[in-house]
Amino acid sequence: MLTQLQLDGNGPLHAQLTRALKQALATGQLRQGSRLPPTRFMSQQMGVSRNTVLAAYEQLRIEGYIDGRVGSGSYVTLPARPAPAPVETPPLPPQTRFAARARQVHDQDNLPGKRVPGVRFSFQYGAPYTHPAVTTAWSRELGHAALYTSPGYPWAQGLPELRQAICEYVLRRGVEARPEDVVIVAGTQQAVSLCARVLFDPGDPVAIEEPQYYAARVILQAYGAQLQPVPVDDQGLIVDALPATAPRVIYTTPSHQFPQGGTLPPERRAALLDYAARNSTWIIEDDYDGEIRYDARSLPSLKSQDEHGRVIYVGTFSKTLFPSLRLGYLVVPRGLRRDFISAKWMEDFGASAIDQAALAGFITSGACDRHLRRSLVALRERRDALLNGLHRMNEGRLSFIDTQAGMHIPVWLNHRDREQGHQFVDRARRMGLGLYSIAPYYLDPPDRAGLILGYAGLPVGDIEQALDVLRQCLDAEYGLRRH
Amino acid sequence: MLTQLQLDGNGPLHAQLTRALKQALATGQLRQGSRLPPTRFMSQQMGVSRNTVLAAYEQLRIEGYIDGRVGSGSYVTLPARPAPAPVETPPLPPQTRFAARARQVHDQDNLPGKRVPGVRFSFQYGAPYTHPAVTTAWSRELGHAALYTSPGYPWAQGLPELRQAICEYVLRRGVEARPEDVVIVAGTQQAVSLCARVLFDPGDPVAIEEPQYYAARVILQAYGAQLQPVPVDDQGLIVDALPATAPRVIYTTPSHQFPQGGTLPPERRAALLDYAARNSTWIIEDDYDGEIRYDARSLPSLKSQDEHGRVIYVGTFSKTLFPSLRLGYLVVPRGLRRDFISAKWMEDFGASAIDQAALAGFITSGACDRHLRRSLVALRERRDALLNGLHRMNEGRLSFIDTQAGMHIPVWLNHRDREQGHQFVDRARRMGLGLYSIAPYYLDPPDRAGLILGYAGLPVGDIEQALDVLRQCLDAEYGLRRH
Repeated sequence: MLTQLQLDGNGPLHAQLTRALKQALATGQLRQGSRLPPTRFMSQQMGVSRNTVLAAYEQLRIEGYIDGRVGSGSYVTLPARPAPAPVETPPLPPQTRFAARARQVHDQDNLPGKRVPGVRFSFQYGAPYTHPAVTTAWSRELGHAALYTSPGYPWAQGLPELRQAICEYVLRRGVEARPEDVVIVAGTQQAVSLCARVLFDPGDPVAIEEPQYYAARVILQAYGAQLQPVPVDDQGLIVDALPATAPRVIYTTPSHQFPQGGTLPPERRAALLDYAARNSTWIIEDDYDGEIRYDARSLPSLKSQDEHGRVIYVGTFSKTLFPSLRLGYLVVPRGLRRDFISAKWMEDFGASAIDQAALAGFITSGACDRHLRRSLVALRERRDALLNGLHRMNEGRLSFIDTQAGMHIPVWLNHRDREQGHQFVDRARRMGLGLYSIAPYYLDPPDRAGLILGYAGLPVGDIEQALDVLRQCLDAEYGLRRH
Repeated sequence: MLTQLQLDGNGPLHAQLTRALKQALATGQLRQGSRLPPTRFMSQQMGVSRNTVLAAYEQLRIEGYIDGRVGSGSYVTLPARPAPAPVETPPLPPQTRFAARARQVHDQDNLPGKRVPGVRFSFQYGAPYTHPAVTTAWSRELGHAALYTSPGYPWAQGLPELRQAICEYVLRRGVEARPEDVVIVAGTQQAVSLCARVLFDPGDPVAIEEPQYYAARVILQAYGAQLQPVPVDDQGLIVDALPATAPRVIYTTPSHQFPQGGTLPPERRAALLDYAARNSTWIIEDDYDGEIRYDARSLPSLKSQDEHGRVIYVGTFSKTLFPSLRLGYLVVPRGLRRDFISAKWMEDFGASAIDQAALAGFITSGACDRHLRRSLVALRERRDALLNGLHRMNEGRLSFIDTQAGMHIPVWLNHRDREQGHQFVDRARRMGLGLYSIAPYYLDPPDRAGLILGYAGLPVGDIEQALDVLRQCLDAEYGLRRH
């Protein structure tokens, strides 16, 4: 569309317009095959008579720039200029301390867990469980929301009806929130970023679990946190190992330690909350898959016991719905509420109102719970297929535990070091199986070969075929099995 | 939904389950009127037999907690606990320098230009021009995109097809970009926030126009910029008034200075680009309404002449489509590309893939240009109605210029100081007309009464009625008019 023609003021108007149109053709603003604006519109747009526009179009037609009869639509016939060749420019030095730290800790070409191209099956963590019913239902909900949602700037804190729906939703995690305690964010990633701006300054100490969620770690690093890694065992964060000099913030995954899988027991929860209260430390509770449990042993969230208001609770719909949605939420202590809302406003004014309205409808209509129920059934089947297969092929070669939760299982190759682990991943990929090392989830990876097997995106049949390849890789690595 | 019940391990299983369900009722996890999960699902979920579940449900029925015949659906009858009363907690001291600065410069309860409740008509800037056709088309596009878009994590930089479509789109502004130069962001607000993290450190000098776009200013302040206000005249930024010691960054609106309305002439553009190249200063070009011109005198963007790669171009669909969409884009110099993509990844992993796919479809199908064409016709009518009305009622009381662009007009009340201006706004609001002071758009407001009249959201009939109220306000302020 041409709204930006400039007349040069020399000579008759139609000649000026002809020159301006040729200019647009030369710069590629008007492309091969595109249609010229209707003469009536052009005339109004440029403040010239329709006859002037007709004369200019006719001139272009005579010169072979356009075809079509004037009046029934004129189309550009001259080829557009070829696009300029890609220029490889070396990056400039980082312009800020943020950019410098980001470059140091994060290589965007080498994201851990990024889908490997060209493999038949991939145990990729983060690939979602999808079902045609949820796609259809979500499409309907979005289309409906688009018709009935205000087009104006959204509320920075989030649509009131969505915040209300979230309050009901988080009750299952024991969180009793009021709509004013909830801030809608663009997923866990933005939740942690807002925490980084609101809770600590560059140089402040921040404790994280070791190992930990990669993306959260690099955000904290990019914002200049002095990371204090705290070890975990099969019950999650070892609270006794927290530093004597308290950090400003502790980032933790108590429901289902990522990626090791432990569930923090009640005594440790009490101790952690007590530590935070005594030291005025903030706790970021990342409850990324708290809804996904396969047994009755789950505990309500840490936030549900947060009597001193030290816990920032983070929830997401990337696991229960799908990651491309980019919606999550924070439940924040009241004394910090305004700072979080303000930080969200500063960043993007608030999430898309249509997306929020659709999600509110999806939750309150029961569609979200129906999908979650269906997901749990399907995920349990996938997990059972994976665990049974691993047990069958094991013969002492693998170590893993069933954490009765989530969408992944960490698996260690016995008697193999980290380098051998990388070679194992490479071999599997050559054989058409996407495996992913656990090493990037450590600040300081142990010298053991470890994998993180995500199973949510693989139907049972695919899992069985993938396991067959995995067995072949193990046989090649450890020598043929005996039976 | 109940996925989080915990059995206490004491006595028979059905009694344990009964206690766990009562617990869920007591905490409000199960609410009045909600349905209990089907027994088959519950049995699988809790790893107990279906008879155990039936026994527990029957016990609850006997005790009056639920009604409905077992098997045909059981519903909670006991009232849920009343919601806790709202607690007014004073905010804590700011926990970070970012939060402290944000509190200092931005009061979220007092947003300039925020819609005044209870008025009949509002000259609110930022209220969009809407048309039922665009709502319908967008709903269809979104619903379609939801069916065909990958549910996985999106590209941080933005969907390739949207970046390609943006490259075609920005040609009208003279910008020749390749898809790899484009970063999709959540509107201008996030564009400026990313710039704040990638282009300057806290304490660095940053030049802004005076007056300026409020939201961009407070972002820059929150990120610790040392603001250097540079005056504007009716041709936009006075480039000669840029500081001798160059800032790291200049934030500017060359197409249509916000809010004063000037268009930066070619000589000043050349001088500004030269200044930036000589001093290694970055220019943020906010082309917020560059597509909306009513004459032929518009100039291509500053970015189109950016030979030295100093300009970060910012575009948005908040003006041409609608603000609740929250999608915009950056065209960035190649040497900074990776830092911008990384900053976007750190913040939110990328925009909603469905929203992006819908927008790409909306642009490439021509629907976006059709809407823009329709908008220009309607906006021109609204602007003409407003300008004609202002001329008719003026009688030397108002000063304003027609900038032939955008969606607002700045208007000054002659011989009235700022305080009188605020009183004028208050009087208008009491008479049912929403007016907005221009003062918040200045770092250091002049002692004159100024208004910013946004007209995009008002049909011509409303504008005429609103003008009638405005005329009455003027008559009251300046004494009855003579004829």
